[in-house]
Amino acid sequence: MTDVLDVLLSHRSIRRFKTDPIPEEDLLRAVSAGQQAATSSNIQGYCAIRVTDPDVRAALVPLTGGQAKVASCPLFMAICGDTRRHRLLAARAGEDYQSNLEGFMLAVIDATLFAQNMVIAFESMGYGTCYIGGLREDLPAVHEVLRTPEGVWPLFGLCVGLPDQEPRRRPRLETDAVLFDDRYPSDGEVLASIDDYDRVMHDWYRSNGIDTPDWSARIRQHFAEKHRTRNAAWYLGAGASFD
Amino acid sequence: MTDVLDVLLSHRSIRRFKTDPIPEEDLLRAVSAGQQAATSSNIQGYCAIRVTDPDVRAALVPLTGGQAKVASCPLFMAICGDTRRHRLLAARAGEDYQSNLEGFMLAVIDATLFAQNMVIAFESMGYGTCYIGGLREDLPAVHEVLRTPEGVWPLFGLCVGLPDQEPRRRPRLETDAVLFDDRYPSDGEVLASIDDYDRVMHDWYRSNGIDTPDWSARIRQHFAEKHRTRNAAWYLGAGASFD
Repeated sequence: MTDVLDVLLSHRSIRRFKTDPIPEEDLLRAVSAGQQAATSSNIQGYCAIRVTDPDVRAALVPLTGGQAKVASCPLFMAICGDTRRHRLLAARAGEDYQSNLEGFMLAVIDATLFAQNMVIAFESMGYGTCYIGGLREDLPAVHEVLRTPEGVWPLFGLCVGLPDQEPRRRPRLETDAVLFDDRYPSDGEVLASIDDYDRVMHDWYRSNGIDTPDWSARIRQHFAEKHRTRNAAWYLGAGASFD
Repeated sequence: MTDVLDVLLSHRSIRRFKTDPIPEEDLLRAVSAGQQAATSSNIQGYCAIRVTDPDVRAALVPLTGGQAKVASCPLFMAICGDTRRHRLLAARAGEDYQSNLEGFMLAVIDATLFAQNMVIAFESMGYGTCYIGGLREDLPAVHEVLRTPEGVWPLFGLCVGLPDQEPRRRPRLETDAVLFDDRYPSDGEVLASIDDYDRVMHDWYRSNGIDTPDWSARIRQHFAEKHRTRNAAWYLGAGASFD
Protein backbone atom coordinates (compact mmCIF):
# COMPACT_ATOMS: atom_id res chain seq x y z
CA MET A 1 0.00 0.00 0.00
CA THR A 2 2.95 2.31 -0.53
CA ASP A 3 0.93 4.04 -3.24
CA VAL A 4 -1.29 5.60 -0.62
CA LEU A 5 1.56 7.09 1.38
CA ASP A 6 3.12 8.31 -1.87
CA VAL A 7 -0.07 10.16 -2.76
CA LEU A 8 -0.42 11.67 0.71
CA LEU A 9 3.22 12.69 0.99
CA SER A 10 3.48 14.24 -2.46
CA HIS A 11 0.57 16.63 -2.06
CA ARG A 12 1.02 20.21 -3.14
CA SER A 13 -1.80 22.55 -4.04
CA ILE A 14 -2.23 23.14 -7.76
CA ARG A 15 -3.18 26.62 -8.89
CA ARG A 16 -2.87 26.28 -12.68
CA PHE A 17 -4.84 23.62 -14.51
CA LYS A 18 -5.06 22.15 -17.98
CA THR A 19 -8.41 22.67 -19.66
CA ASP A 20 -9.25 18.95 -19.99
CA PRO A 21 -12.65 18.29 -18.48
CA ILE A 22 -13.00 15.74 -15.70
CA PRO A 23 -14.95 12.64 -16.71
CA GLU A 24 -18.14 12.27 -14.74
CA GLU A 25 -17.11 8.83 -13.54
CA ASP A 26 -13.95 10.25 -11.95
CA LEU A 27 -15.99 12.87 -10.14
CA LEU A 28 -18.49 10.29 -8.90
CA ARG A 29 -15.68 8.04 -7.74
CA ALA A 30 -14.17 10.90 -5.74
CA VAL A 31 -17.52 11.85 -4.22
CA SER A 32 -18.16 8.24 -3.21
CA ALA A 33 -14.72 8.14 -1.60
CA GLY A 34 -15.56 11.39 0.17
CA GLN A 35 -18.80 9.98 1.49
CA GLN A 36 -17.07 6.93 2.92
CA ALA A 37 -15.04 9.13 5.29
CA ALA A 38 -16.01 8.98 8.94
CA THR A 39 -19.03 11.08 9.87
CA SER A 40 -20.11 11.89 13.40
CA SER A 41 -23.04 9.61 14.36
CA ASN A 42 -23.56 9.09 10.61
CA ILE A 43 -25.19 12.52 10.31
CA GLN A 44 -23.39 13.15 6.96
CA GLY A 45 -23.53 16.88 7.54
CA TYR A 46 -22.17 18.06 4.21
CA CYS A 47 -22.85 18.63 0.55
CA ALA A 48 -20.93 19.75 -2.53
CA ILE A 49 -22.41 22.21 -4.99
CA ARG A 50 -20.66 21.83 -8.31
CA VAL A 51 -20.73 25.13 -10.16
CA THR A 52 -21.08 24.55 -13.89
CA ASP A 53 -22.69 27.86 -14.92
CA PRO A 54 -19.89 30.04 -16.35
CA ASP A 55 -21.63 33.22 -15.18
CA VAL A 56 -21.74 31.94 -11.61
CA ARG A 57 -18.12 30.89 -11.85
CA ALA A 58 -17.19 34.36 -13.07
CA ALA A 59 -19.23 35.96 -10.31
CA LEU A 60 -17.36 33.90 -7.70
CA VAL A 61 -13.91 35.18 -8.74
CA PRO A 62 -14.17 38.61 -7.13
CA LEU A 63 -16.03 37.07 -4.18
CA THR A 64 -13.13 34.74 -3.38
CA GLY A 65 -10.42 37.39 -3.41
CA GLY A 66 -9.91 37.56 -7.16
CA GLN A 67 -8.77 34.00 -7.75
CA ALA A 68 -9.14 33.52 -11.52
CA LYS A 69 -8.73 29.76 -11.18
CA VAL A 70 -12.17 29.59 -9.58
CA ALA A 71 -13.57 30.42 -13.03
CA SER A 72 -11.01 28.64 -15.17
CA CYS A 73 -10.45 25.31 -13.42
CA PRO A 74 -12.24 22.33 -14.99
CA LEU A 75 -14.18 21.51 -11.84
CA PHE A 76 -15.18 23.83 -9.02
CA MET A 77 -17.26 22.77 -6.04
CA ALA A 78 -18.51 24.75 -3.06
CA ILE A 79 -18.15 22.48 -0.04
CA CYS A 80 -20.84 23.19 2.53
CA GLY A 81 -21.73 22.11 6.00
CA ASP A 82 -25.24 20.78 5.51
CA THR A 83 -27.83 20.56 8.27
CA ARG A 84 -30.72 21.12 5.90
CA ARG A 85 -31.70 17.43 5.78
CA HIS A 86 -31.83 17.23 9.55
CA ARG A 87 -33.98 20.35 9.79
CA LEU A 88 -36.42 19.16 7.15
CA LEU A 89 -36.81 15.82 8.92
CA ALA A 90 -37.60 17.53 12.20
CA ALA A 91 -40.03 19.93 10.51
CA ARG A 92 -41.85 17.13 8.68
CA ALA A 93 -42.34 15.27 11.96
CA GLY A 94 -43.35 18.45 13.80
CA GLU A 95 -40.42 18.01 16.15
CA ASP A 96 -37.82 20.41 17.52
CA TYR A 97 -34.51 20.96 15.78
CA GLN A 98 -31.80 22.30 18.05
CA SER A 99 -28.28 23.30 17.33
CA ASN A 100 -25.38 25.25 18.80
CA LEU A 101 -21.60 25.49 18.39
CA GLU A 102 -21.41 21.70 18.65
CA GLY A 103 -23.80 21.34 15.71
CA PHE A 104 -21.76 23.83 13.70
CA MET A 105 -18.55 21.97 14.51
CA LEU A 106 -20.08 18.63 13.53
CA ALA A 107 -20.91 20.04 10.11
CA VAL A 108 -17.52 21.74 9.64
CA ILE A 109 -15.62 18.60 10.66
CA ASP A 110 -17.85 16.24 8.65
CA ALA A 111 -17.56 18.43 5.54
CA THR A 112 -13.78 18.64 5.89
CA LEU A 113 -13.39 14.87 6.22
CA PHE A 114 -15.60 14.47 3.13
CA ALA A 115 -13.57 17.02 1.17
CA GLN A 116 -10.18 15.64 2.13
CA ASN A 117 -11.14 12.14 1.03
CA MET A 118 -12.21 13.64 -2.30
CA VAL A 119 -8.87 15.43 -2.57
CA ILE A 120 -6.95 12.20 -1.96
CA ALA A 121 -9.14 10.35 -4.46
CA PHE A 122 -8.63 13.03 -7.12
CA GLU A 123 -4.88 13.14 -6.53
CA SER A 124 -4.70 9.35 -6.81
CA MET A 125 -6.29 9.73 -10.26
CA GLY A 126 -3.66 12.25 -11.32
CA TYR A 127 -5.60 15.45 -10.71
CA GLY A 128 -4.44 18.46 -8.76
CA THR A 129 -6.58 20.33 -6.26
CA CYS A 130 -6.71 23.60 -4.42
CA TYR A 131 -8.89 24.50 -1.47
CA ILE A 132 -10.42 27.96 -1.69
CA GLY A 133 -10.84 29.34 1.83
CA GLY A 134 -11.59 32.61 0.06
CA LEU A 135 -15.15 31.30 -0.33
CA ARG A 136 -15.63 32.70 3.19
CA GLU A 137 -14.45 36.15 2.07
CA ASP A 138 -17.93 37.49 1.30
CA LEU A 139 -20.54 35.00 2.45
CA PRO A 140 -23.59 37.21 1.92
CA ALA A 141 -22.65 37.62 -1.75
CA VAL A 142 -21.69 33.94 -2.12
CA HIS A 143 -25.08 33.08 -0.68
CA GLU A 144 -26.77 35.34 -3.24
CA VAL A 145 -24.95 33.56 -6.04
CA LEU A 146 -25.28 29.96 -4.80
CA ARG A 147 -28.75 30.45 -3.24
CA THR A 148 -28.02 28.15 -0.32
CA PRO A 149 -31.03 27.67 1.98
CA GLU A 150 -30.96 28.02 5.76
CA GLY A 151 -28.77 25.39 7.39
CA VAL A 152 -26.43 25.06 4.40
CA TRP A 153 -23.14 26.80 5.11
CA PRO A 154 -20.52 27.38 2.42
CA LEU A 155 -17.17 26.57 4.05
CA PHE A 156 -14.58 26.48 1.27
CA GLY A 157 -14.26 25.85 -2.43
CA LEU A 158 -12.36 23.11 -4.19
CA CYS A 159 -10.70 23.51 -7.60
CA VAL A 160 -9.84 20.31 -9.44
CA GLY A 161 -8.13 19.58 -12.74
CA LEU A 162 -5.06 18.15 -14.39
CA PRO A 163 -2.01 20.10 -13.17
CA ASP A 164 -0.49 22.58 -15.59
CA GLN A 165 2.40 23.33 -13.24
CA GLU A 166 4.76 21.33 -11.08
CA PRO A 167 5.23 23.33 -7.89
CA ARG A 168 7.67 22.10 -5.28
CA ARG A 169 6.28 20.68 -2.09
CA ARG A 170 6.33 23.23 0.71
CA PRO A 171 8.18 21.96 3.79
CA ARG A 172 6.23 21.59 7.01
CA LEU A 173 7.19 21.98 10.65
CA GLU A 174 9.25 19.11 12.01
CA THR A 175 7.08 16.23 13.13
CA ASP A 176 8.14 16.70 16.75
CA ALA A 177 6.72 20.23 16.56
CA VAL A 178 3.18 18.91 16.07
CA LEU A 179 3.25 15.51 17.83
CA PHE A 180 3.70 15.54 21.59
CA ASP A 181 3.73 12.86 24.23
CA ASP A 182 1.35 13.50 27.12
CA ARG A 183 2.06 17.18 27.61
CA TYR A 184 2.10 20.26 25.46
CA PRO A 185 5.65 21.65 25.29
CA SER A 186 6.87 24.78 27.04
CA ASP A 187 6.80 28.16 25.28
CA GLY A 188 10.57 28.01 24.86
CA GLU A 189 10.39 24.60 23.21
CA VAL A 190 7.66 25.78 20.85
CA LEU A 191 9.63 28.85 19.84
CA ALA A 192 12.81 26.84 19.32
CA SER A 193 11.00 24.51 16.93
CA ILE A 194 9.72 27.54 15.01
CA ASP A 195 13.23 29.00 14.77
CA ASP A 196 14.35 25.76 13.13
CA TYR A 197 11.46 25.93 10.69
CA ASP A 198 12.18 29.58 9.91
CA ARG A 199 15.63 28.60 8.68
CA VAL A 200 14.17 25.89 6.44
CA MET A 201 11.51 28.20 5.05
CA HIS A 202 13.92 31.10 4.59
CA ASP A 203 15.86 28.98 2.11
CA TRP A 204 12.70 27.65 0.52
CA TYR A 205 11.22 31.12 -0.03
CA ARG A 206 14.50 32.29 -1.56
CA SER A 207 14.85 29.37 -3.91
CA ASN A 208 11.22 29.84 -5.00
CA GLY A 209 11.66 33.56 -5.58
CA ILE A 210 9.24 34.54 -2.82
CA ASP A 211 10.17 37.82 -1.22
CA THR A 212 9.40 37.31 2.45
CA PRO A 213 11.68 37.31 5.49
CA ASP A 214 10.49 34.05 7.07
CA TRP A 215 7.51 32.00 8.16
CA SER A 216 7.29 33.74 11.53
CA ALA A 217 6.95 37.12 9.92
CA ARG A 218 4.20 35.87 7.63
CA ILE A 219 2.34 34.35 10.55
CA ARG A 220 2.65 37.50 12.66
CA GLN A 221 1.40 39.58 9.77
CA HIS A 222 -1.50 37.18 9.12
CA PHE A 223 -2.73 37.27 12.70
CA ALA A 224 -2.09 40.97 13.35
CA GLU A 225 -5.69 41.63 12.42
CA LYS A 226 -9.03 39.84 12.36
CA HIS A 227 -10.19 38.43 9.05
CA ARG A 228 -13.67 37.92 7.62
CA THR A 229 -15.22 39.65 10.60
CA ARG A 230 -18.79 39.40 9.33
CA ASN A 231 -18.82 35.62 9.12
CA ALA A 232 -20.06 34.82 12.62
CA ALA A 233 -23.08 37.02 11.99
CA TRP A 234 -23.67 35.49 8.58
CA TYR A 235 -23.47 31.88 9.77
CA LEU A 236 -25.77 32.81 12.64
CA GLY A 237 -28.26 34.28 10.20
CA ALA A 238 -28.05 31.12 8.12
CA GLY A 239 -29.11 29.04 11.11
CA ALA A 240 -25.78 28.27 12.77
CA SER A 241 -26.48 28.99 16.40
CA PHE A 242 -23.37 29.14 18.60
CA ASP A 243 -25.12 29.16 22.00
CA MET B 1 -3.54 4.04 -8.12
CA THR B 2 -6.53 1.83 -7.47
CA ASP B 3 -5.06 1.05 -4.07
CA VAL B 4 -5.90 4.53 -2.88
CA LEU B 5 -9.55 4.35 -3.88
CA ASP B 6 -9.74 0.89 -2.32
CA VAL B 7 -8.49 2.25 0.98
CA LEU B 8 -10.85 5.23 0.89
CA LEU B 9 -13.89 3.22 -0.14
CA SER B 10 -13.39 0.43 2.37
CA HIS B 11 -13.27 2.66 5.44
CA ARG B 12 -15.27 1.65 8.46
CA SER B 13 -14.56 2.79 11.99
CA ILE B 14 -12.93 0.19 14.20
CA ARG B 15 -13.97 0.03 17.82
CA ARG B 16 -12.17 -3.13 18.98
CA PHE B 17 -8.41 -3.41 18.60
CA LYS B 18 -5.72 -6.03 18.99
CA THR B 19 -3.19 -5.24 21.66
CA ASP B 20 -0.18 -5.09 19.29
CA PRO B 21 1.64 -1.81 19.77
CA ILE B 22 2.14 0.48 16.79
CA PRO B 23 5.77 0.78 15.71
CA GLU B 24 7.07 4.31 16.11
CA GLU B 25 8.00 4.48 12.44
CA ASP B 26 4.41 3.79 11.39
CA LEU B 27 3.19 6.58 13.64
CA LEU B 28 5.77 9.01 12.30
CA ARG B 29 4.89 8.07 8.74
CA ALA B 30 1.22 8.78 9.43
CA VAL B 31 1.99 12.11 11.11
CA SER B 32 4.17 13.15 8.18
CA ALA B 33 1.34 12.25 5.82
CA GLY B 34 -1.00 14.29 8.02
CA GLN B 35 1.28 17.29 7.89
CA GLN B 36 1.44 17.20 4.11
CA ALA B 37 -2.32 17.85 3.88
CA ALA B 38 -3.34 21.30 2.72
CA THR B 39 -3.21 24.00 5.39
CA SER B 40 -4.70 27.46 5.07
CA SER B 41 -1.90 29.96 4.27
CA ASN B 42 0.51 27.35 5.66
CA ILE B 43 -0.48 28.24 9.22
CA GLN B 44 -0.42 24.55 10.27
CA GLY B 45 -2.93 25.20 13.00
CA TYR B 46 -2.95 21.80 14.65
CA CYS B 47 -1.16 19.39 16.93
CA ALA B 48 -1.61 15.84 18.17
CA ILE B 49 -1.07 14.94 21.80
CA ARG B 50 -0.35 11.23 22.07
CA VAL B 51 -1.50 9.97 25.44
CA THR B 52 0.84 7.25 26.69
CA ASP B 53 0.25 7.58 30.44
CA PRO B 54 -2.18 4.78 31.44
CA ASP B 55 -3.64 6.90 34.24
CA VAL B 56 -4.44 9.71 31.83
CA ARG B 57 -5.95 7.23 29.40
CA ALA B 58 -8.11 5.82 32.18
CA ALA B 59 -9.14 9.31 33.22
CA LEU B 60 -10.24 10.09 29.67
CA VAL B 61 -12.70 7.17 29.48
CA PRO B 62 -15.45 8.72 31.61
CA LEU B 63 -14.71 12.12 30.07
CA THR B 64 -15.44 10.84 26.55
CA GLY B 65 -18.76 9.23 27.34
CA GLY B 66 -17.42 5.99 28.80
CA GLN B 67 -15.64 4.68 25.73
CA ALA B 68 -13.34 1.96 27.09
CA LYS B 69 -11.39 1.83 23.83
CA VAL B 70 -9.90 5.23 24.64
CA ALA B 71 -7.93 3.44 27.38
CA SER B 72 -7.41 0.10 25.67
CA CYS B 73 -6.50 1.00 22.09
CA PRO B 74 -2.78 0.78 21.26
CA LEU B 75 -2.53 4.44 20.23
CA PHE B 76 -4.69 7.35 21.34
CA MET B 77 -4.14 10.93 20.26
CA ALA B 78 -6.00 14.09 21.15
CA ILE B 79 -6.22 16.13 17.96
CA CYS B 80 -6.19 19.84 18.71
CA GLY B 81 -6.60 23.07 16.85
CA ASP B 82 -3.35 24.84 17.68
CA THR B 83 -2.90 28.61 17.56
CA ARG B 84 -0.32 28.59 20.35
CA ARG B 85 2.65 28.98 17.98
CA HIS B 86 1.07 32.00 16.33
CA ARG B 87 0.36 33.63 19.68
CA LEU B 88 3.87 33.05 20.99
CA LEU B 89 5.36 34.55 17.84
CA ALA B 90 3.25 37.67 18.18
CA ALA B 91 4.06 37.96 21.88
CA ARG B 92 7.79 37.56 21.33
CA ALA B 93 7.71 40.36 18.75
CA GLY B 94 5.52 42.55 20.94
CA GLU B 95 2.83 42.53 18.25
CA ASP B 96 -0.92 42.07 18.33
CA TYR B 97 -2.51 38.66 17.93
CA GLN B 98 -6.11 38.79 16.75
CA SER B 99 -8.60 36.05 16.17
CA ASN B 100 -12.30 35.44 15.72
CA LEU B 101 -14.61 32.78 14.30
CA GLU B 102 -12.48 32.72 11.14
CA GLY B 103 -9.39 31.92 13.22
CA PHE B 104 -11.27 29.17 15.02
CA MET B 105 -12.50 27.71 11.73
CA LEU B 106 -8.99 27.78 10.25
CA ALA B 107 -7.75 25.69 13.16
CA VAL B 108 -10.70 23.27 13.08
CA ILE B 109 -10.40 22.75 9.32
CA ASP B 110 -6.60 22.49 9.36
CA ALA B 111 -6.69 19.98 12.22
CA THR B 112 -9.34 17.90 10.47
CA LEU B 113 -7.37 17.76 7.20
CA PHE B 114 -4.30 16.72 9.20
CA ALA B 115 -6.24 14.02 11.05
CA GLN B 116 -7.92 12.60 7.98
CA ASN B 117 -4.63 12.21 6.17
CA MET B 118 -3.34 10.34 9.22
CA VAL B 119 -6.41 8.10 9.16
CA ILE B 120 -5.87 7.27 5.47
CA ALA B 121 -2.17 6.62 6.11
CA PHE B 122 -2.92 4.33 9.05
CA GLU B 123 -5.59 2.45 7.12
CA SER B 124 -3.21 1.97 4.20
CA MET B 125 -0.82 0.30 6.67
CA GLY B 126 -3.55 -2.09 7.84
CA TYR B 127 -4.62 -0.27 11.00
CA GLY B 128 -8.14 0.62 11.99
CA THR B 129 -9.16 3.98 13.42
CA CYS B 130 -12.00 5.61 15.28
CA TYR B 131 -12.57 9.31 15.78
CA ILE B 132 -13.69 10.22 19.28
CA GLY B 133 -15.93 13.29 19.09
CA GLY B 134 -16.67 12.50 22.73
CA LEU B 135 -13.46 14.36 23.55
CA ARG B 136 -15.68 17.46 23.41
CA GLU B 137 -18.05 15.98 26.00
CA ASP B 138 -16.37 17.60 29.00
CA LEU B 139 -13.72 20.04 27.81
CA PRO B 140 -12.96 21.61 31.20
CA ALA B 141 -12.06 18.18 32.59
CA VAL B 142 -10.19 17.16 29.42
CA HIS B 143 -8.22 20.35 29.75
CA GLU B 144 -7.37 19.50 33.35
CA VAL B 145 -6.08 16.12 32.28
CA LEU B 146 -4.21 17.16 29.13
CA ARG B 147 -3.09 20.57 30.49
CA THR B 148 -3.48 22.31 27.13
CA PRO B 149 -2.39 25.97 27.23
CA GLU B 150 -4.42 28.88 25.90
CA GLY B 151 -4.91 28.68 22.14
CA VAL B 152 -4.76 24.87 22.02
CA TRP B 153 -8.23 23.44 21.55
CA PRO B 154 -8.96 19.73 21.88
CA LEU B 155 -11.31 18.87 19.00
CA PHE B 156 -11.55 15.08 18.88
CA GLY B 157 -9.62 11.98 19.75
CA LEU B 158 -8.27 9.31 17.45
CA CYS B 159 -7.95 5.64 18.40
CA VAL B 160 -5.61 3.54 16.26
CA GLY B 161 -4.67 -0.13 16.25
CA LEU B 162 -4.91 -3.39 14.39
CA PRO B 163 -8.61 -4.27 13.97
CA ASP B 164 -9.97 -7.02 16.18
CA GLN B 165 -13.33 -6.97 14.43
CA GLU B 166 -14.57 -6.84 10.87
CA PRO B 167 -17.61 -4.58 10.88
CA ARG B 168 -19.60 -4.10 7.70
CA ARG B 169 -19.35 -0.79 5.91
CA ARG B 170 -22.28 1.45 6.71
CA PRO B 171 -24.09 2.65 3.59
CA ARG B 172 -24.17 6.37 2.88
CA LEU B 173 -26.71 8.62 1.23
CA GLU B 174 -26.84 8.27 -2.53
CA THR B 175 -24.20 10.40 -4.22
CA ASP B 176 -26.87 12.58 -5.85
CA ALA B 177 -28.12 13.43 -2.36
CA VAL B 178 -24.85 15.22 -1.52
CA LEU B 179 -23.59 16.42 -4.93
CA PHE B 180 -25.65 19.08 -6.67
CA ASP B 181 -25.23 21.02 -9.87
CA ASP B 182 -25.50 24.78 -9.43
CA ARG B 183 -28.49 24.87 -7.11
CA TYR B 184 -29.43 23.30 -3.84
CA PRO B 185 -32.43 20.98 -4.36
CA SER B 186 -35.96 21.68 -3.22
CA ASP B 187 -37.21 20.50 0.18
CA GLY B 188 -39.26 17.80 -1.54
CA GLU B 189 -36.24 16.49 -3.42
CA VAL B 190 -34.17 16.40 -0.25
CA LEU B 191 -36.85 14.49 1.65
CA ALA B 192 -37.34 12.02 -1.21
CA SER B 193 -33.62 11.21 -1.17
CA ILE B 194 -33.82 10.62 2.56
CA ASP B 195 -36.79 8.30 2.17
CA ASP B 196 -34.70 6.20 -0.20
CA TYR B 197 -31.86 6.11 2.30
CA ASP B 198 -34.22 5.19 5.12
CA ARG B 199 -35.18 2.03 3.25
CA VAL B 200 -31.53 1.10 2.76
CA MET B 201 -30.65 1.76 6.37
CA HIS B 202 -33.74 0.01 7.70
CA ASP B 203 -32.48 -3.21 6.15
CA TRP B 204 -28.92 -2.52 7.25
CA TYR B 205 -29.91 -1.91 10.89
CA ARG B 206 -31.98 -5.11 10.87
CA SER B 207 -29.24 -7.27 9.41
CA ASN B 208 -26.77 -5.83 11.93
CA GLY B 209 -29.11 -6.41 14.86
CA ILE B 210 -29.49 -2.71 15.63
CA ASP B 211 -32.87 -1.93 17.10
CA THR B 212 -33.82 1.39 15.55
CA PRO B 213 -36.66 2.34 13.20
CA ASP B 214 -34.65 4.19 10.57
CA TRP B 215 -32.00 6.83 9.92
CA SER B 216 -34.55 9.67 9.96
CA ALA B 217 -35.67 8.75 13.43
CA ARG B 218 -32.12 8.64 14.71
CA ILE B 219 -31.37 12.04 13.18
CA ARG B 220 -34.53 13.60 14.62
CA GLN B 221 -33.68 12.20 18.03
CA HIS B 222 -30.08 13.41 17.80
CA PHE B 223 -31.04 16.98 16.96
CA ALA B 224 -34.06 17.22 19.26
CA GLU B 225 -31.80 18.78 21.87
CA LYS B 226 -28.58 20.75 22.07
CA HIS B 227 -25.42 18.84 22.89
CA ARG B 228 -22.27 19.89 24.72
CA THR B 229 -23.77 23.23 25.56
CA ARG B 230 -20.80 24.47 27.57
CA ASN B 231 -18.31 24.19 24.72
CA ALA B 232 -18.69 27.66 23.23
CA ALA B 233 -17.89 29.15 26.64
CA TRP B 234 -14.96 26.80 27.12
CA TYR B 235 -13.38 27.46 23.73
CA LEU B 236 -13.88 31.18 24.34
CA GLY B 237 -12.10 30.89 27.68
CA ALA B 238 -9.27 29.03 25.96
CA GLY B 239 -8.73 31.94 23.62
CA ALA B 240 -11.10 31.13 20.75
CA SER B 241 -12.84 34.42 20.13
CA PHE B 242 -15.90 34.21 17.87
CA ASP B 243 -16.41 37.94 17.27
